[in-house]
Amino acid sequence: MKNRVTELFNIQYPIIQAGMIWNSGWRLASAVSNTGGLGLLGAGSMYPEVLREHILKCKNATAKPFGVNVPMLYPDIDKIIDIIIEEGVKIVFTSAGNPKKYTSKLKENGITVVHVVSSVKFALKAQEAGVDAVVAEGFEAGGHNGREETTTFTLIPMVKEQLRIPLIAAGGIATGRGMLAAIVLGADGVQVGSRFVASEEASSHRAFKQMVVDAKEGDTQLTLKELAPVRMLKNKFFESVLQLYTTNPTKEDLIKHLGRARAKRGMFEGDLEEGELEIGQIAGLIHDIKPAAQILTDMVAEFEKAKKEVINL
Amino acid sequence: MKNRVTELFNIQYPIIQAGMIWNSGWRLASAVSNTGGLGLLGAGSMYPEVLREHILKCKNATAKPFGVNVPMLYPDIDKIIDIIIEEGVKIVFTSAGNPKKYTSKLKENGITVVHVVSSVKFALKAQEAGVDAVVAEGFEAGGHNGREETTTFTLIPMVKEQLRIPLIAAGGIATGRGMLAAIVLGADGVQVGSRFVASEEASSHRAFKQMVVDAKEGDTQLTLKELAPVRMLKNKFFESVLQLYTTNPTKEDLIKHLGRARAKRGMFEGDLEEGELEIGQIAGLIHDIKPAAQILTDMVAEFEKAKKEVINL
Repeated sequence: MKNRVTELFNIQYPIIQAGMIWNSGWRLASAVSNTGGLGLLGAGSMYPEVLREHILKCKNATAKPFGVNVPMLYPDIDKIIDIIIEEGVKIVFTSAGNPKKYTSKLKENGITVVHVVSSVKFALKAQEAGVDAVVAEGFEAGGHNGREETTTFTLIPMVKEQLRIPLIAAGGIATGRGMLAAIVLGADGVQVGSRFVASEEASSHRAFKQMVVDAKEGDTQLTLKELAPVRMLKNKFFESVLQLYTTNPTKEDLIKHLGRARAKRGMFEGDLEEGELEIGQIAGLIHDIKPAAQILTDMVAEFEKAKKEVINL
Repeated sequence: MKNRVTELFNIQYPIIQAGMIWNSGWRLASAVSNTGGLGLLGAGSMYPEVLREHILKCKNATAKPFGVNVPMLYPDIDKIIDIIIEEGVKIVFTSAGNPKKYTSKLKENGITVVHVVSSVKFALKAQEAGVDAVVAEGFEAGGHNGREETTTFTLIPMVKEQLRIPLIAAGGIATGRGMLAAIVLGADGVQVGSRFVASEEASSHRAFKQMVVDAKEGDTQLTLKELAPVRMLKNKFFESVLQLYTTNPTKEDLIKHLGRARAKRGMFEGDLEEGELEIGQIAGLIHDIKPAAQILTDMVAEFEKAKKEVINL
């Protein structure tokens, strides 16, 4: 399969593994890249020197293209950008911030830049800022999420209608059928998060992966909208947030209750009660922990099967 | 195109026009049925004798199958059910209530029964209650909506995985591409609401239809979750609800603020400021008011075009 996304990244399949905090280290990214997708390191949970280590290990583990996801509100953002340039990373996905800030610098250094958005308005702003492609992520996605609450099913065709550059769909995509549906709606490729959390190579805690596998439809919710909206599993910590909301809390109350390192505690350390467990709605369709390579090849096989079914409609 | 949905209703295309309050009268339903889809009357905004009149006019206007949507929390529900049976209506879509209550009675009278749900759990309960098909409606849908907030893109494959009876997707579907994507995700057919609001035949006010046409991505929001979650355009009334929320209102405060007949005021009488304007997220992709027949034939043509593109992927 060749299209604007496979050509942009020089990959075999238009499937990007999301650069998720506490999940996306060099083992996951290199496994995906080695199988023909695009693996991303998640810089959002790495100190700058930890990111450098992951870049070096990823280079050792794969000769194929890989990239780094950089949330632009990260405190050490300038150091992170410098390390990415120093280590010769060729692909950067930016999120959570203004794409104008780093796109020129990255592109001057020969880096392909993709920006993650959750609305038509910001997709067009990213295009204007000179990025090479846009990821449009729907309300069903896990972790941090847009304020518009626009879903993948409606966001993709609305962005597609106005965007010229390649469009990558994200949010709710974990299967080959989902991939085909996203392409039918107007995407050139897909970014897959939750499905790769339940992989052997994700760096998150096994207990968290198992909870993702056990999750059913309705087991996640978007909350903390006054801070940054985030979708998580409805565990004990989530219930305590709901409880706090009944007391008409201020923003400061919410910040205090959230505290520090909740996501690390939940996803990396495996504290399923007190941690923040970020995952998408599609977790209800994920039933096993598999090697990343198998996730990718299963997706491609199902995509081909779904294509044949369309032909026979 | 023949499948379980076209066979169940004896229609040409697996496209159902939603039975929406203040929009779905006999003109719209008969136009859709006459063009090969399934038109539904929306009983939720009709007094029992008004519904009888619409059924009679619809029978006069089409020889093809049509149905009635019945929200089961309707105060005159027993009268409505009796009129449907007396007038020989053959298809009923029930929503907003327990499908156990009327399914047996309707089926004993030879009526095909479909129930609308927004979660896997209630899809399975509806199947258990003996309905003939299920409509699974995602978070992006206009009007009243589920508490789980599960989106069409994730809800359809999760319901499909467990449901045996035919599955109709709703929420966010306004185009032939959307129809194909929903079928790829596992649906046998689609229920289309917002797109038919912007039709010549919808009984809503022209000013409301025009506001739907003018709406952009991000212009709707789900609110009043403490009462019954409802998606509406962000107009002056919506802003007043947001304002009320900053005061930590009780459920009674919300009920009082909502008042009576807000939906009628907005959608039927065309009060765009003080009325409740129910519409789905996909309004951002709707750019014209067209005859219902053309909406349907355009959808089918785009569906066929999108199929051909899949073959060439």
